[in-house]
Amino acid sequence: MAEKASKIFQAFREHSVAEFFKKNRQMLGYSGKIRSLTTIVHEYVTNSLDACEEAGILPDITVEIEQLGPDHYRVTVEDNGPGIPKSHVGKVFGKMLAGTKFHRFIQQRGQQGIGAAGCTMYAQITTGKPVRVVTSTGNGMIYECSVMIDVKRNEPVITDEKEYPGTMRGTRVIGEFKGVKYVKSEYGPYEYLRRTAIANPHAKIVFRDPEGARHVWERAVDALPAIPKPSKPHPYGLTAHDLLEYASMSKARSLKSFFVQTFDRVSAAKVKELEELTGIDFNRKPDSLTWEEAATIIDAIKKIKFLAPSTKNLYPIGQEQIEKAILNVLKPEFHSVVTRPPSVYRGGVPFIVEAGIAFGGEAGRKVDSSRKMEIMRFANRAPLLFDSGACVITKVVNEIDWKRYGLKDAENMPVTIVVNITSTYIPYTSAGKQAISDEEEIHKEIKLALQEVARKTSIHISRKIKAKEKSEKKKTLLKYIPEIADALQKLVGANKQEVEKKLLEIVEKKYKEWEAGEETSENGEKELEKLEEMAVKEDLENGSIGE
Amino acid sequence: MAEKASKIFQAFREHSVAEFFKKNRQMLGYSGKIRSLTTIVHEYVTNSLDACEEAGILPDITVEIEQLGPDHYRVTVEDNGPGIPKSHVGKVFGKMLAGTKFHRFIQQRGQQGIGAAGCTMYAQITTGKPVRVVTSTGNGMIYECSVMIDVKRNEPVITDEKEYPGTMRGTRVIGEFKGVKYVKSEYGPYEYLRRTAIANPHAKIVFRDPEGARHVWERAVDALPAIPKPSKPHPYGLTAHDLLEYASMSKARSLKSFFVQTFDRVSAAKVKELEELTGIDFNRKPDSLTWEEAATIIDAIKKIKFLAPSTKNLYPIGQEQIEKAILNVLKPEFHSVVTRPPSVYRGGVPFIVEAGIAFGGEAGRKVDSSRKMEIMRFANRAPLLFDSGACVITKVVNEIDWKRYGLKDAENMPVTIVVNITSTYIPYTSAGKQAISDEEEIHKEIKLALQEVARKTSIHISRKIKAKEKSEKKKTLLKYIPEIADALQKLVGANKQEVEKKLLEIVEKKYKEWEAGEETSENGEKELEKLEEMAVKEDLENGSIGE
Repeated sequence: MAEKASKIFQAFREHSVAEFFKKNRQMLGYSGKIRSLTTIVHEYVTNSLDACEEAGILPDITVEIEQLGPDHYRVTVEDNGPGIPKSHVGKVFGKMLAGTKFHRFIQQRGQQGIGAAGCTMYAQITTGKPVRVVTSTGNGMIYECSVMIDVKRNEPVITDEKEYPGTMRGTRVIGEFKGVKYVKSEYGPYEYLRRTAIANPHAKIVFRDPEGARHVWERAVDALPAIPKPSKPHPYGLTAHDLLEYASMSKARSLKSFFVQTFDRVSAAKVKELEELTGIDFNRKPDSLTWEEAATIIDAIKKIKFLAPSTKNLYPIGQEQIEKAILNVLKPEFHSVVTRPPSVYRGGVPFIVEAGIAFGGEAGRKVDSSRKMEIMRFANRAPLLFDSGACVITKVVNEIDWKRYGLKDAENMPVTIVVNITSTYIPYTSAGKQAISDEEEIHKEIKLALQEVARKTSIHISRKIKAKEKSEKKKTLLKYIPEIADALQKLVGANKQEVEKKLLEIVEKKYKEWEAGEETSENGEKELEKLEEMAVKEDLENGSIGE
Repeated sequence: MAEKASKIFQAFREHSVAEFFKKNRQMLGYSGKIRSLTTIVHEYVTNSLDACEEAGILPDITVEIEQLGPDHYRVTVEDNGPGIPKSHVGKVFGKMLAGTKFHRFIQQRGQQGIGAAGCTMYAQITTGKPVRVVTSTGNGMIYECSVMIDVKRNEPVITDEKEYPGTMRGTRVIGEFKGVKYVKSEYGPYEYLRRTAIANPHAKIVFRDPEGARHVWERAVDALPAIPKPSKPHPYGLTAHDLLEYASMSKARSLKSFFVQTFDRVSAAKVKELEELTGIDFNRKPDSLTWEEAATIIDAIKKIKFLAPSTKNLYPIGQEQIEKAILNVLKPEFHSVVTRPPSVYRGGVPFIVEAGIAFGGEAGRKVDSSRKMEIMRFANRAPLLFDSGACVITKVVNEIDWKRYGLKDAENMPVTIVVNITSTYIPYTSAGKQAISDEEEIHKEIKLALQEVARKTSIHISRKIKAKEKSEKKKTLLKYIPEIADALQKLVGANKQEVEKKLLEIVEKKYKEWEAGEETSENGEKELEKLEEMAVKEDLENGSIGE
C-alpha cells in the first residue's frame, strides 16, 4: 500500500539559514580539523582587513593561536579598524546573512555576511562557549560582550555586557574551538597569513603561533590604500531579471535617467541608441517596464558599443606590487607579471585578472629535495588554500599547454604561478569561499593572462635551456682534457700539464664566445617572431580577434 | 581621515536565504549553461524518486526537454508519486529551507529543502515566468497552479490556481528556462539519466530529448523497494553539542530513557556502563545536562564498545544489483564489486560505501579511439557529474597506488570505477550537491573498499597480462614458421607446406599447454599469498588492525 501524501507531509517544516549552515557546516569550510582552524583565521582576518580599508586605515592585525588541549585552541584576532557600534555587535557575530557587504556592489574580501557568525556557531557547537568581543569606535568608551547564536531563529544572544572608558580603536575577538588542529603545512594559518602578506603589502600582520613564536610581516607600502567605493553595474552581462529588479527599486523619474544613474558607462547618447534600436519610450517611469521590454533592451545592449567597465572602483594588487612581492618572497631566477584590462561577467560585474609566473630560486612547492609547480590563488587579495580542484584558476592552469612555452614538464619544475581575481563580487562555488566558479568570461581572462606571462617567460626558458646544454657540453669537454693530455704525453711525449692548460684555455674561450653570441644571435630574433605568431594563433583560438 | 564606524554601518542590512542563493546561484549548481540544465533535471528527478520511494511506489518518471530558442528550453518532469497536498505546493516549489527532508535522519537523495525552489528561482530570473505545477494525491481531484518566489521574503507567490475532478496520482512540473543548453556529453541530462538508471534498477525512466528522440530505461527489478525510515543517530561520532541539543528536545523522563530512546544501539546495560564511567546520575531529567557533563559523557562513549550502526534504515544498491548493472551497461571483461559494512562519521551518522571496478569491454571513458579511466560517483544512488576535483571519491581514487594492483598506467586503461555512498546525511561540499566533503571516516571507508576491489581485480589483471605475453610469443613463433620452412626446403629439400603444417601444430599444442597450466599453476597460489600479505600491509597502514 502506498503511503498517503498527507501522512508524508506531516513532517514538513521550515528552517533558518543558521540551522542550514549548522548542519552543512562543511559548506562554510568546517570540514577536517586543519581546514576548520584556517577557516576561522581567514574569516576574522578578512573582516579586519575589509573594515580597515573601508575606513581608510592602514591595517595592523594581530593573530594569536593558543593550544588548550588536543584539538582545542583559543584564537584571538585584533585590528585597529573603525570598531563596531554597540548596536551592531550582536548581528555581526551572531546572525547570518546580516551585514554591510551582501547587497553592495563593492570590492571587499567578505561578501556574504556569514563568516564571523559561522565562527561563533563553530565555537558554540564544539565548546558550548560564546565568543568574546571587545570593540571601540575610538570615542573613549570600550564595549565588551559575549555572543552566541540562537540557531533555530538565526538571532544573536548577547550576555556579560560591559562598557567602560578607555583609549582604543578597533575590534578584538576571542573564540575557543575544539575539533581544530594547528599545523605548519601549506593548509595551515601560518601559510595563510604569509600569502595574505604577499597580496596585502600595505598591511602589518603579527602572528603568535601555539608554540609561542612570534612572526611579523612588516608593512612594505606606507601609502594609505584607496578606499573601496560601491560601483555601478556595467550593462554588458545584465539579464532581463537584473534590469527589472534595478528598475523596481529606482526612484528615477524616467527610464532615461534610471539608465544613466544606475549603470556604468551609460550616457544620454547611449540611451538614445537604445531607444532607436528597441522602439521603447524611455521617458516612461522605470517601474512600468515589462519583462518582454526588458528582454528586448538586453538584446539591444549586446549590439551597442559601451566603454569597458570603469576601473575606478576596482583595486587590483598592481603589476609593480606583485613583482615586489614575488622578488621579495620567492627570489626567482626570472619572473613575469601581467595585469589584464578590466572585463565584465554575468550581472554586469566588472573584474580584473592579474597573473604572474616565477621560475627558479625559491619558486615552486618544495617536495623532498626538489621543487614542483605551485599555484597561488587569490580573490580580492585573500589567499585561497582549499578546494583547489574545484577552482577555475586551477582548471585554466591545467588547460594551458605549457610545453608550447618551453616548460616541457611544468608540473615538476620550480615554478610558482600567481593569479589574483579582483571584483566587486567573486562568484565562489561555496559559502566556504575557497574556489571560484567557472564563469565563461573569467575563465577566458585567466587564460589570456597566463598565456601572456607564459609567452614572456618562454624566451627566458629557452635561453636557460640552451645555456644549460652549452654548460654540459663544456663539462664533457673538460672531463676529457686529462685523458687527451695523458694520451698525447704517451704518444708524442708532450708535457701533460702544458697540454692540459692549453686545452682548458681553448674550451673556456669557446664557451665565452657561445655566451656572448647568445644575446645578439639570430635565434633570439627568430624566437620572438615565433612567439608573436603564437600570440596571434592563441587570440584566434580564444575568439578575441574579430569580435 | 578615517571614516567613522557609524557611517559605515548605515549600510547594514539583513537578507533572506533566497536572496543569498539568488546572488550566489552558482552554489546551487547554476554556473554555465550546460550544468544549469543538468541541475534542473537533477533536482526534479531526485525529488520524484524520493517521493515515490517514501510512499512505497515503484517510480515511473518521464522527463521531457523541448528547445524554444537558443539557450531557451522547457523542462517537464512527471512522476507517479504520492502527489503534494494543495496546502504544501507553494512551499515545496516557492520557499527555500522548507520541506520534509532537512531535519529527519532519513536516507534520501534530497536533503536540504532548496532544490525545487532553486529551479523556480532560476526560471524566474532567466525568463520572468513562474513554474507550473499539476498534482494530485489520487483523491479524484487534480490541483494546478503557477509558483514564483518573493525573493526578498523567501515566500511563495501562487497564481492561476485551478482544481478539477480527474484520475491522476503524482506530480508534473513544467518550467521554462533561459541561460541553459542541452548537450549529449558526459555532463548533460542524457548521461545523468543513464547513470540514474544504473543506480536505480527499480525505476522506469523515459526521456524525450530536444530532438524528439525517446529513450527508455526499463525497470530491471520489479520488487517494491524498501521504504526508507528515519533512523536514530549512533553514539560514536556524537559531539557534546549534538547531545545537548537532543537532550533539550527530548520528552523522556530520565537521561537513561532519553539515551535508550534517542540513540542507536544504546541498551540499558550500556547506559549503566556510562553511569559507572562518568559518575553522572542518569535518573535526572535530560534537560538538566550541562555542557561539562555532556563532554564527559562523550569521552566515556569513546571508551565503550557499541554494536556497529544498525543498517536497517540504510539501503545500499547492493553488490548483486551493482554487478547486474555493470554487466548490463559496461559489458566488461571482468569486474569486482564490494559493499562495505556500515560505518559512522561525525554526529553519529551511519553510512555505507560500495565500490566496483570494471575492466575492458565498454568500461572506461571513450577518448578518440582509446578508453581511459572513468570514475562514476553516486550519493544515495544519485549520480554526481560535476565538481569531481572537490569530491572525496576522486581524491581517494587518485591516492590509490594502482600500480600495486597491476594497473601500471591506470589513467590510460579501459577501467570504470563505481563508488556509491549511502547515508541518512551526505556531507556535500556545497548546496549544489555534486561533491562529497573529505570527512575522515568516509575517506577511510572508500579507500578500504577500493583496495578490496583492486585486490580482487589484480589477479585477473596479472593473468590477462601473462596471457597477452604468451599470445605475443605465439604470434612471434608463427611469424617465423614460413621462413624456417623456406630455409629447410632450400637446405635439405624438405617439403615447405608439410614443414609449415608440422611447425604450426607444435606451436598450437605448446600454446594450449600454457593455457591449461595457468588455471592450476603454482604461480596462482603464490599470487594469492602475495595478495593476502598486501591486504594485511594495507590494513596496518590504515590503522584498522589493533584498534
